[in-house]
Amino acid sequence: MSNLVYILNGPNLNLLGRREPEIYGADTLEDVAGRCTEVAKTEGLTVEQRQSNHEGQLIDWIHDARDKAAGIIINPGAYTHTSIAILDALSAFGGPVIELHISQVHRRERFRHHSYVSRRADVVIAGCGVHGYELAVLHMAKLLQG
Amino acid sequence: MSNLVYILNGPNLNLLGRREPEIYGADTLEDVAGRCTEVAKTEGLTVEQRQSNHEGQLIDWIHDARDKAAGIIINPGAYTHTSIAILDALSAFGGPVIELHISQVHRRERFRHHSYVSRRADVVIAGCGVHGYELAVLHMAKLLQG
Amino acid sequence: MSNLVYILNGPNLNLLGRREPEIYGADTLEDVAGRCTEVAKTEGLTVEQRQSNHEGQLIDWIHDARDKAAGIIINPGAYTHTSIAILDALSAFGGPVIELHISQVHRRERFRHHSYVSRRADVVIAGCGVHGYELAVLHMAKLLQG
Amino acid sequence: MSNLVYILNGPNLNLLGRREPEIYGADTLEDVAGRCTEVAKTEGLTVEQRQSNHEGQLIDWIHDARDKAAGIIINPGAYTHTSIAILDALSAFGGPVIELHISQVHRRERFRHHSYVSRRADVVIAGCGVHGYELAVLHMAKLLQG
Amino acid sequence: MSNLVYILNGPNLNLLGRREPEIYGADTLEDVAGRCTEVAKTEGLTVEQRQSNHEGQLIDWIHDARDKAAGIIINPGAYTHTSIAILDALSAFGGPVIELHISQVHRRERFRHHSYVSRRADVVIAGCGVHGYELAVLHMAKLLQG
Amino acid sequence: MSNLVYILNGPNLNLLGRREPEIYGADTLEDVAGRCTEVAKTEGLTVEQRQSNHEGQLIDWIHDARDKAAGIIINPGAYTHTSIAILDALSAFGGPVIELHISQVHRRERFRHHSYVSRRADVVIAGCGVHGYELAVLHMAKLLQG
Amino acid sequence: MSNLVYILNGPNLNLLGRREPEIYGADTLEDVAGRCTEVAKTEGLTVEQRQSNHEGQLIDWIHDARDKAAGIIINPGAYTHTSIAILDALSAFGGPVIELHISQVHRRERFRHHSYVSRRADVVIAGCGVHGYELAVLHMAKLLQG
Amino acid sequence: MSNLVYILNGPNLNLLGRREPEIYGADTLEDVAGRCTEVAKTEGLTVEQRQSNHEGQLIDWIHDARDKAAGIIINPGAYTHTSIAILDALSAFGGPVIELHISQVHRRERFRHHSYVSRRADVVIAGCGVHGYELAVLHMAKLLQG
Amino acid sequence: MSNLVYILNGPNLNLLGRREPEIYGADTLEDVAGRCTEVAKTEGLTVEQRQSNHEGQLIDWIHDARDKAAGIIINPGAYTHTSIAILDALSAFGGPVIELHISQVHRRERFRHHSYVSRRADVVIAGCGVHGYELAVLHMAKLLQG
Amino acid sequence: MSNLVYILNGPNLNLLGRREPEIYGADTLEDVAGRCTEVAKTEGLTVEQRQSNHEGQLIDWIHDARDKAAGIIINPGAYTHTSIAILDALSAFGGPVIELHISQVHRRERFRHHSYVSRRADVVIAGCGVHGYELAVLHMAKLLQG
Amino acid sequence: MSNLVYILNGPNLNLLGRREPEIYGADTLEDVAGRCTEVAKTEGLTVEQRQSNHEGQLIDWIHDARDKAAGIIINPGAYTHTSIAILDALSAFGGPVIELHISQVHRRERFRHHSYVSRRADVVIAGCGVHGYELAVLHMAKLLQG
Amino acid sequence: MSNLVYILNGPNLNLLGRREPEIYGADTLEDVAGRCTEVAKTEGLTVEQRQSNHEGQLIDWIHDARDKAAGIIINPGAYTHTSIAILDALSAFGGPVIELHISQVHRRERFRHHSYVSRRADVVIAGCGVHGYELAVLHMAKLLQG
Repeated sequence: MSNLVYILNGPNLNLLGRREPEIYGADTLEDVAGRCTEVAKTEGLTVEQRQSNHEGQLIDWIHDARDKAAGIIINPGAYTHTSIAILDALSAFGGPVIELHISQVHRRERFRHHSYVSRRADVVIAGCGVHGYELAVLHMAKLLQG
Repeated sequence: MSNLVYILNGPNLNLLGRREPEIYGADTLEDVAGRCTEVAKTEGLTVEQRQSNHEGQLIDWIHDARDKAAGIIINPGAYTHTSIAILDALSAFGGPVIELHISQVHRRERFRHHSYVSRRADVVIAGCGVHGYELAVLHMAKLLQG
Repeated sequence: MSNLVYILNGPNLNLLGRREPEIYGADTLEDVAGRCTEVAKTEGLTVEQRQSNHEGQLIDWIHDARDKAAGIIINPGAYTHTSIAILDALSAFGGPVIELHISQVHRRERFRHHSYVSRRADVVIAGCGVHGYELAVLHMAKLLQG
Repeated sequence: MSNLVYILNGPNLNLLGRREPEIYGADTLEDVAGRCTEVAKTEGLTVEQRQSNHEGQLIDWIHDARDKAAGIIINPGAYTHTSIAILDALSAFGGPVIELHISQVHRRERFRHHSYVSRRADVVIAGCGVHGYELAVLHMAKLLQG
Repeated sequence: MSNLVYILNGPNLNLLGRREPEIYGADTLEDVAGRCTEVAKTEGLTVEQRQSNHEGQLIDWIHDARDKAAGIIINPGAYTHTSIAILDALSAFGGPVIELHISQVHRRERFRHHSYVSRRADVVIAGCGVHGYELAVLHMAKLLQG
Repeated sequence: MSNLVYILNGPNLNLLGRREPEIYGADTLEDVAGRCTEVAKTEGLTVEQRQSNHEGQLIDWIHDARDKAAGIIINPGAYTHTSIAILDALSAFGGPVIELHISQVHRRERFRHHSYVSRRADVVIAGCGVHGYELAVLHMAKLLQG
Repeated sequence: MSNLVYILNGPNLNLLGRREPEIYGADTLEDVAGRCTEVAKTEGLTVEQRQSNHEGQLIDWIHDARDKAAGIIINPGAYTHTSIAILDALSAFGGPVIELHISQVHRRERFRHHSYVSRRADVVIAGCGVHGYELAVLHMAKLLQG
Repeated sequence: MSNLVYILNGPNLNLLGRREPEIYGADTLEDVAGRCTEVAKTEGLTVEQRQSNHEGQLIDWIHDARDKAAGIIINPGAYTHTSIAILDALSAFGGPVIELHISQVHRRERFRHHSYVSRRADVVIAGCGVHGYELAVLHMAKLLQG
Repeated sequence: MSNLVYILNGPNLNLLGRREPEIYGADTLEDVAGRCTEVAKTEGLTVEQRQSNHEGQLIDWIHDARDKAAGIIINPGAYTHTSIAILDALSAFGGPVIELHISQVHRRERFRHHSYVSRRADVVIAGCGVHGYELAVLHMAKLLQG
Repeated sequence: MSNLVYILNGPNLNLLGRREPEIYGADTLEDVAGRCTEVAKTEGLTVEQRQSNHEGQLIDWIHDARDKAAGIIINPGAYTHTSIAILDALSAFGGPVIELHISQVHRRERFRHHSYVSRRADVVIAGCGVHGYELAVLHMAKLLQG
Repeated sequence: MSNLVYILNGPNLNLLGRREPEIYGADTLEDVAGRCTEVAKTEGLTVEQRQSNHEGQLIDWIHDARDKAAGIIINPGAYTHTSIAILDALSAFGGPVIELHISQVHRRERFRHHSYVSRRADVVIAGCGVHGYELAVLHMAKLLQG
Repeated sequence: MSNLVYILNGPNLNLLGRREPEIYGADTLEDVAGRCTEVAKTEGLTVEQRQSNHEGQLIDWIHDARDKAAGIIINPGAYTHTSIAILDALSAFGGPVIELHISQVHRRERFRHHSYVSRRADVVIAGCGVHGYELAVLHMAKLLQG
């Protein structure tokens, strides 16, 4: 079985490290990818991180994962709350799925409390900041060894 | 008048035949297109089938149809329930529109019971499996001869 | 196996052809029955069409169908939206069920958007006008041959 | 044009005069019919009063009215709140329709506040007791004189 | 006991006869008052008609009625749907209350379907046009003789 | 006082014993009536069991019960959830009313969670299988001796 | 700083002492004002009590209070539940606001459970009868001495 | 297998026989336990009755039942409507569960219509008064012999 | 045709310039009127500005406008959200209506998101501060020249 | 009759004086009890103050009050919003009940706006800070003398 | 500071001038851009107009604006009602944002009444037709000079 | 600062390892505590694990934590969804709070989707099985070092 894990990021996450650093921290997506790669290596995994503001692009990548990846870690950004299409794409993926949010979404506006993706995700991690990505990789390793 | 009919398919339908074949059957979109082409021929129509996971791409194609196609058969997938933009694009199309679902959506989750597209569609067919595409072409012929 | 198909019609459909012909067309239920009989014959089926304004009568007929008919095509009229009893009766019928509406109910008042019958129906056809009855017979043939 | 007016009564109204007379009064439906006949005569109208506990029977009578009656006065009883089929039947009737309730329904349980029949009725009279039938005949005369 | 009946009219009813005469008719409030006076006389009653666009003024008049009038006929106009204060004022009035609407409010926008006043009114009459005022006087006579 | 108890059964219950026996058991309504008769005899009661798919027929029988029966045991089937008219008929019956469901309705679909009949019933028994009929007769005896 | 406190009363409170004395007591607004004046004097305050059935008049007085009064005690009557305009007027007042209801509004109809005024009020007292006015003056003294 | 049945009672049931005897009767919980013991003996069962006002205590007892009791009869009192924790505890119990209410809860306030416990209970009995406890023991015997 | 435009202001707007100047600015209604007069002159219009805290007074002025004004610019303040009566008055006015809010109401409390007036208004301008009045006059000129 | 009054405090109130003193003040529950004792003495009453974080303990104390106390002042803390069991216990208490909140709960989160306890309480006082306890004792004296 | 203003247009706006000209007018987006350029020039601004049917593309452009533009005027079309992602992108933009709709959206279907974009926009202009674009440029100049 | 972390477990978690091991795994709470102790040691922390079925007990422990613990990891079990009192207790705790669920609650029944505790928690972890406890300790170390 493949030991590749996709880390997919949705809209506006390309601004990470540049937007409201007092909330999201000063780390960019590239910094995050670097640390995830290290953690993955110690667990015998490879990670590949991508970001897009396009809902369709995220769906295309989830389809690709069917053939290439053993698991998906996804931070769907605002599409969390509105995209049934991403939910359907994830439902057609056979491996484990971890849904991740940098902030604790349940303490923000009401319309951010509902998640379509949670109907499919095996795990939800919210509010750990960018450290959550590393925890997600750690747990993914556990699930794939399971 | 043009005798061309667009058959547009939304997100995740590119997986048809490979995803949950016990529900959706083993036919791929290409198989469906083949049978639709035959049925269309006997009715004096031409069909052109397209699929995209991108909401914007589907809207672009619906705009194209204004100049090129006599009718649209659309299976909007998950965008059925969330896309007002596709509804608006279809509202700017003058010919007949048939909304098609492979499964009987009213027997699935609650959030799949509501359809924005149904506000514009002249016909709704749900639950006939992929055979529904052929029925849609047959009925489109009737509407265009009307 | 029986090759008989019941075509059951609910309240107010006895007025077909006499009520709002610009919407429903000039065909009466008898005309529809005639054409369905022809289509059925080419498919090796027999059809029997009935109409009642009484919810209980429709349930009685659905019960009869358990012993006599291979499939049911039903246009439940307004009982579509209010009758759980008809839903239950259909649920006790083993063969395929096609729910049919002459108009596209999802484009009418909100209280016509919900259907109890759809929870059981294998197929829903709406908005094809009286031509829908013929499509239903065609598809019933397909289902029975399946 | 016919000068006949149908007065149709729905479920449980056959108990009038025997059920809770302190609320509904001691008059029976027959007493009401007698007084309506007198009022009608002075206005040049004929009335015909009927009662049934069967939704389907009420629909049948409304259909009959298409050929025989100039107007309908209807007290749909509990079907007021649940019958879309009666609404549809009344919508297929061309003459004026007066909806009548003996009690003031808006002062009773919440589920009696909504009326399907009100979507079609030209007039609603509620809370006048059985005297309301006479007022309805008076106003029907006015409507038929145009 | 007093034989005086108040006929109170709420906002915009001063435009009666000048606003949308094809709907509301050509009669002004003064014409209506004239005919009500005649009907009242034959029933041994006196009527006094008033109109105001001010919610507070209507409440003041209802308070006056406590000492002066035997019954109230009220067309609260748009305050029907929004004024709990008028409901409270009517609740402090001991005699019979008839709520009257010229048009059939249940066939208009949804926000006109709810009435606070109906929680107190003994009778509701809607959709009889200005003829409804005369029917209300007739029934008030009946209630006061009761 | 009469010692007769009506056992009324609503739509689809005539199929008992033939529909989904793994859920509802192999007993028919006749079997149930037989056992209820025996239980009733030991309690000094007589029972009379009836079944109809017609809402109006059930109402007629409830009216008959006013003169003939001391109590009513009713399994309203699907009319449980939709019939205000049956609720009204039962409200006009003076004796005790027991509402009975073979299955535990609160564990089924959401629309089966609401019961109009429960607003009138003195007792509700759900989930005891057909044995519930016997418990109902036992408790009815208790209520009538009370 | 001013030591004047406004006690404002909304619609129907002019009937105090005359309407349902078994609920509201036999004291009139004038009696209440008298006792409040005494309590205020012992606390070094002056009170001025006013009542109007007009929403606009109450708003005018709240505006006046900006220049003249140190605090407002308000019993908004039925406007509690419907007037955003009074809420806005109070929001433009800088001193403390006590909302007062004679009855315990949460034990009355549901539409009396919601209060716009509570969004601004610093204190709510409900159900103490007219004695609540005196408690409100006592607590206002406390707040102004702060 | 154990022949012990737990009868658990929730908050306020210790007041039975002393609170509103015209509704709940004059029997105390001890009287009820006495009669249940007798009925149980004739059915070859033993019963043990307990009561607590503490949600946690009830959960502890349900856990105890896992090792000691064959079935549970529970009257959860007001925790019926609010305690998911009791539902979870019951879900971890393998034997049959009968939910019992002395009054007919569906005829009381709306917030008493919903039961979390019903999602797990095999049987619901409501409105039989304290006699319901005996019926519950009778039916529990049936279930355990099943 | 008249070239007069009414600028009507609802409750609390008399406090403009004195209430929360950091939000609403330091301009008073008089300052606004002055600038509107200038803009109007360059467009060949006359404006007349009025303010009242009384719902009824605003309705009276809208009725006056039927004979005197070519268009209405209205800032209904809090009545925006609660007054169907003002909506009805505006619906009886034949010329163009511009609804204006100084702040961006959709960013404030939820109950300020709904507007009855928007059902009639031809244009909505919100959040431009007092500059919005000048834009409204500019666009009114455009509409009247149209 | 007893002159003892229970002052019961629910969860987290043991932290009073130590949690957010800028909101709740620096007084502890003991300080409050001291002042209440003094006020009570001048009114001829005795008070007994208790606090628990356990819902069941509070219910036990309310049951005790049936035999020992003339009235109950209760600050149910967060159980205000969730405990039907406390409501039921209070409903079985015959004397007056005053519900008290230190803060103005209607200005806090939405889920704090609803109170089960208010369905039973004769009086509600909210937002007076700890001074509210003294006002409650004052008014309790009034009620017990009534 | 940059004097560039982005004018962004969402789905279906490329059809402007060709779709329903009786509603939207005969002007195309290019015509609008021309007039905006002129108005901008007199105010010392430059404008750049773009249109896309792709949600992701609009987000990309809003990100670009962070470095290049001083303000954004956006007509999000149907994404107004469904896109939290666009809201988030705008929230990461530091300059003023004007939301613009050609038609008066509050007078159209209910699902067009809610706007996610309004949570960020400083100004909303709706219903001014294409003239609204010019007003938006005028007001943007005001905001940037502010 | 203390380096002690509380791990609190709510109702039914004492059954861990014995209830539905195919879902929750075979580890008991003691096994979990053992592994957490090890992880904590490597991070320089101490952990103390407790479990109770009593809501009040959990609140007492959270209060204790104010003086003794640097952080709280809490799995509130079913109290997650119903306990505002636990939310309030956590809000009075100054250190970081991690909310943990063994299963992915959003894929279970609807009433498990809402969490009061999430309004206070800094982090939410759900669906990692008992491994989640170790991840929580890891992240707590990060937060305390922050």
